[in-house]
Amino acid sequence: MNNIDIINRIKSIQSFLKEKKLDGFIQPRSDSYLGEYVPQSDSRLEWISGFSGSAGEILILCKSAILFVDSRYTIQAVNETKNTNIKVVLSSEKSLVDYIENNSNILKNIAFDPWLHSLSMVKYFLYIGSKYNLKFVSLKQNPIDLIWVTNRDDAPKSEIKKHIAKYAGISTSEKIQNLCLRLKSLSVDSYIITQPDAIAWLLNIRGADLKHTPIILTRAIIFKNKNICLFIDESRINSEIKNYFKKEITNIKIYPENKLLNVINNIAKNKNKILIDPSTTSYVFANEILKEKNNNIVEQDCPIELMKAIKNKVEIRGSIIAHKKDGIALSKFLYWIYNSKNTNNSEMLFSNKIDQLRSQQKNFICTSFETISGYASNGAIVHYRVTNQSNKKIKGNSLYLCDSGGQYLEGTTDVTRTIVIGKPSVLMKKHFTIVLKAHIALASAVFPYGTTGNELDLLTRSPLWKNDMNYGHGTGHGVGSCLNVHEGPHRISKGSLTILEPGMVTSNEPGFYLENKYGIRIENLMVITKLNHKNNKNMLCFKSLTLAPIDINLINYKLLTHEEIKWINDYNNSVYKYISIYLEGSIKKWLKEVCRPFIITTH
Amino acid sequence: MNNIDIINRIKSIQSFLKEKKLDGFIQPRSDSYLGEYVPQSDSRLEWISGFSGSAGEILILCKSAILFVDSRYTIQAVNETKNTNIKVVLSSEKSLVDYIENNSNILKNIAFDPWLHSLSMVKYFLYIGSKYNLKFVSLKQNPIDLIWVTNRDDAPKSEIKKHIAKYAGISTSEKIQNLCLRLKSLSVDSYIITQPDAIAWLLNIRGADLKHTPIILTRAIIFKNKNICLFIDESRINSEIKNYFKKEITNIKIYPENKLLNVINNIAKNKNKILIDPSTTSYVFANEILKEKNNNIVEQDCPIELMKAIKNKVEIRGSIIAHKKDGIALSKFLYWIYNSKNTNNSEMLFSNKIDQLRSQQKNFICTSFETISGYASNGAIVHYRVTNQSNKKIKGNSLYLCDSGGQYLEGTTDVTRTIVIGKPSVLMKKHFTIVLKAHIALASAVFPYGTTGNELDLLTRSPLWKNDMNYGHGTGHGVGSCLNVHEGPHRISKGSLTILEPGMVTSNEPGFYLENKYGIRIENLMVITKLNHKNNKNMLCFKSLTLAPIDINLINYKLLTHEEIKWINDYNNSVYKYISIYLEGSIKKWLKEVCRPFIITTH
Repeated sequence: MNNIDIINRIKSIQSFLKEKKLDGFIQPRSDSYLGEYVPQSDSRLEWISGFSGSAGEILILCKSAILFVDSRYTIQAVNETKNTNIKVVLSSEKSLVDYIENNSNILKNIAFDPWLHSLSMVKYFLYIGSKYNLKFVSLKQNPIDLIWVTNRDDAPKSEIKKHIAKYAGISTSEKIQNLCLRLKSLSVDSYIITQPDAIAWLLNIRGADLKHTPIILTRAIIFKNKNICLFIDESRINSEIKNYFKKEITNIKIYPENKLLNVINNIAKNKNKILIDPSTTSYVFANEILKEKNNNIVEQDCPIELMKAIKNKVEIRGSIIAHKKDGIALSKFLYWIYNSKNTNNSEMLFSNKIDQLRSQQKNFICTSFETISGYASNGAIVHYRVTNQSNKKIKGNSLYLCDSGGQYLEGTTDVTRTIVIGKPSVLMKKHFTIVLKAHIALASAVFPYGTTGNELDLLTRSPLWKNDMNYGHGTGHGVGSCLNVHEGPHRISKGSLTILEPGMVTSNEPGFYLENKYGIRIENLMVITKLNHKNNKNMLCFKSLTLAPIDINLINYKLLTHEEIKWINDYNNSVYKYISIYLEGSIKKWLKEVCRPFIITTH
Repeated sequence: MNNIDIINRIKSIQSFLKEKKLDGFIQPRSDSYLGEYVPQSDSRLEWISGFSGSAGEILILCKSAILFVDSRYTIQAVNETKNTNIKVVLSSEKSLVDYIENNSNILKNIAFDPWLHSLSMVKYFLYIGSKYNLKFVSLKQNPIDLIWVTNRDDAPKSEIKKHIAKYAGISTSEKIQNLCLRLKSLSVDSYIITQPDAIAWLLNIRGADLKHTPIILTRAIIFKNKNICLFIDESRINSEIKNYFKKEITNIKIYPENKLLNVINNIAKNKNKILIDPSTTSYVFANEILKEKNNNIVEQDCPIELMKAIKNKVEIRGSIIAHKKDGIALSKFLYWIYNSKNTNNSEMLFSNKIDQLRSQQKNFICTSFETISGYASNGAIVHYRVTNQSNKKIKGNSLYLCDSGGQYLEGTTDVTRTIVIGKPSVLMKKHFTIVLKAHIALASAVFPYGTTGNELDLLTRSPLWKNDMNYGHGTGHGVGSCLNVHEGPHRISKGSLTILEPGMVTSNEPGFYLENKYGIRIENLMVITKLNHKNNKNMLCFKSLTLAPIDINLINYKLLTHEEIKWINDYNNSVYKYISIYLEGSIKKWLKEVCRPFIITTH
């Protein structure tokens, strides 16, 4: 990346601002789908600033530009914007809105692209605007699109594929039926579905528009009479899918993507009661409704999210299969590391190895996110991604952390293992064992229906807090079924008030990060299941899905209770039980060895 | 209690209803202070129904009467209303409001006494009224007061006593100063204080108007300029208190109690911005404001509650002293039981004994609630109070549960111990040990500032849930300092969202109740303190205040972790350390024996 390019691009935007008599322009990282991943064609933030992180936003003013990033990305953002005059600011200390507030005496007209911000966010902009007497200006066209004309990919156009009943479990017609019952109970006539993964789930379709998520970037409107309008280039739908749609959906109309605003406006004009999810729907769509007088907009969380989060029996069975394949790949990976005497061992080599082993599994589609492969001090960087510059040799005595996952037709995986390279120190073992205690606290929790991730987060962190340790990220997130690796509505984290339901899948990933030394994270996926208690009704527990050995060389068993020792013995034993049947010879012997139980001598 | 009396009283109310063309009248248990305890003079529910429980309400209709009680009181209510034609209903199955809703076709005019219901409750009545097209009629006078003229105590009129700085810790003038800063930050001109314990705290006064709480039943108005109006019969204030008030309070005016409505209305007329706490203030007071057009009422939680809940250093030191005295009384009690071979041992004898031993302690005022003394199956009744009828002989092999507490000048105590009589069964030991694990989970918790009782409740119940056990009450409640034994705003229970602050006192009282067999509860009071962690800032933990041996004969040590064994060893050791210095001879030897540590043999 030539920084002269960046400087010139920023200058072009600044000329645009002057010409339009604007004081600033906000470019967030997101595209108009407001999702976690953005295709190259829509990576405007990276193009304008050079910053490639997964979250952040730039405020371009007439004479300066400020990039706001979170603590994960401060170092990376400074590196990537070197010699560009872009100022990097830590958003937790001063957010973009804080900055605008503080400079509200000179910033009077701030422009934004209404496709790239949610209704909730723009409402917040407008609130700030009224408070400080400044104007947030919704632009007809993003100024970056005016100047980014070469070296820009076309928008992704992968073909729609059917996600068959063998993997989806519930037919499209049944899902539509249930969703329409929900729409009726919410007393709305239609719902604008703006999240591609919600559409993929509802219509049982998949695609390849994104690198790590097998979805199609599309939007739809569903009516309470089960009619659907789908907004997509019709050439992407082959005849098989067309027939499939006809069979499953009472009435489906395919419109070009650019017709969505017109259709929304027509519905709004007819005083149709329209549901939208304000936090995941671009302002531009909501505005098509809101600009109509006496419109009937209903703002509420996406009703598909909860339906999608509660996995059906076929999806759970699929997840178990996906995790077996993942376990085979991970076991092979760990065995390969164990045998590897290569002096060129590095984070990148390891990262490529696990990706390669996973890709050899049947029905593998893609990795579910970019593999995190961090040795020693790099392991302490929570969202570390190895680059040619950062690539550490793996040698000596420290900890290696690998967080990786796959998309399989049967399900989505996400697993972190931390292993020792060389010999562990007493402190490494202590830290690892305390993190393991936290992992076990959650994995073995028993809780009544009505419990939320908010309460379970405290239960998980409790052993760390007792030892003056902690981690700066959430304890768990929902995971899709051959869909987004991060999925709502539930989370295991402070403040998450979604009630946990049987069938929900969540990660369990406590960690500990010793800056400049090493990082530890132990992450399994788990599914919530009912417990058949005699006295207490409606009790729930977790069942671990992930099958990969947890490094017993890092356990100080003296710090574990008998129950905890039983848990780790049972867990590693189940890894051996379910994975060893797919292995033979020396690797099978090795797996038995690393999964051996610790024998408790009773006192 | 002659049931003919009850029948006649109900009939009188029914005549009143007919005369006034009303369909029903609601009489709750509470008096106009809406507190937990009610003096005999205001125990209208008991007088009209015979029911003496601490919660409930009766709906008297023209031809019937229905008493709504919670699960604690169903048996008692049925017994106490025998042969009266009063129907007893479990309120969790059908509440009074449910009943009115279900019969809204015939119940069109329901009368209530506006002194006995909070503003929030009456708002709810009015909401139900508008929904079902029925009228809730606010009465000028309670019809029970028209007929209850003999055998009625005078309202309590105990003399105001000063709660001196040695016990209160903070002067009245400083408390008023802080409260007025809070009123200014809430932008209000005045606050109507309707909770007697809030006034006792603010003015550093105590009294003897209630059996278990050393307070004066009075109300006050405070203005942001620190002026105070106190509504009380002036004869109850001696010259020392008058001088004290003059010294501490810029300007205090004493009004007769019956002037409060007039004064409120005058303030409201002057468009004064008045704060009231809608859930603890009688509708009658709020109505004096609300009936003024364009009034400036501000509804918010009592601002004194949080100030009062966070104990100052003197109060915490006082609590420690009170708990030492309590520990001496309890140790003597347990030793007396240990030595007692009396074949007449009974729940009542035990109850009287602990009350007597506690009353011998210096600065003892009264018990902080009616002692719960339950043996075997009676111990399984959570809010059991022994009567001549229920009084069980204490013999054989079972568990004895004693929940008791005292009001001392230095502080308020509340402690439950469960001990074995005879030999415990394996199951008794298991149940006791699991409850102990829950108690230890909370007592040894480490948590960040921002944590609430909601999250800690799950942590506490976790060991019980794993063993298919639970308890149907909260885990902990706030406790006053020589004030109410149940105090807000914090609780350790599902749904309690008050942030826990250093200095707050809470009970820790997990339990287990095996119907018709025995009850177990282990209750200590604890104070929240800051932890000096190196890495994690703003961490908090609990320090146990209660000092009484936990019965080691009931512990199955195999079920405890090393950490838990260390906790119980340390706890009982601290009991011996702080209490034994006040004991001599055989009781001291006995205390050493029952506080002896369990020796862990390392594996």
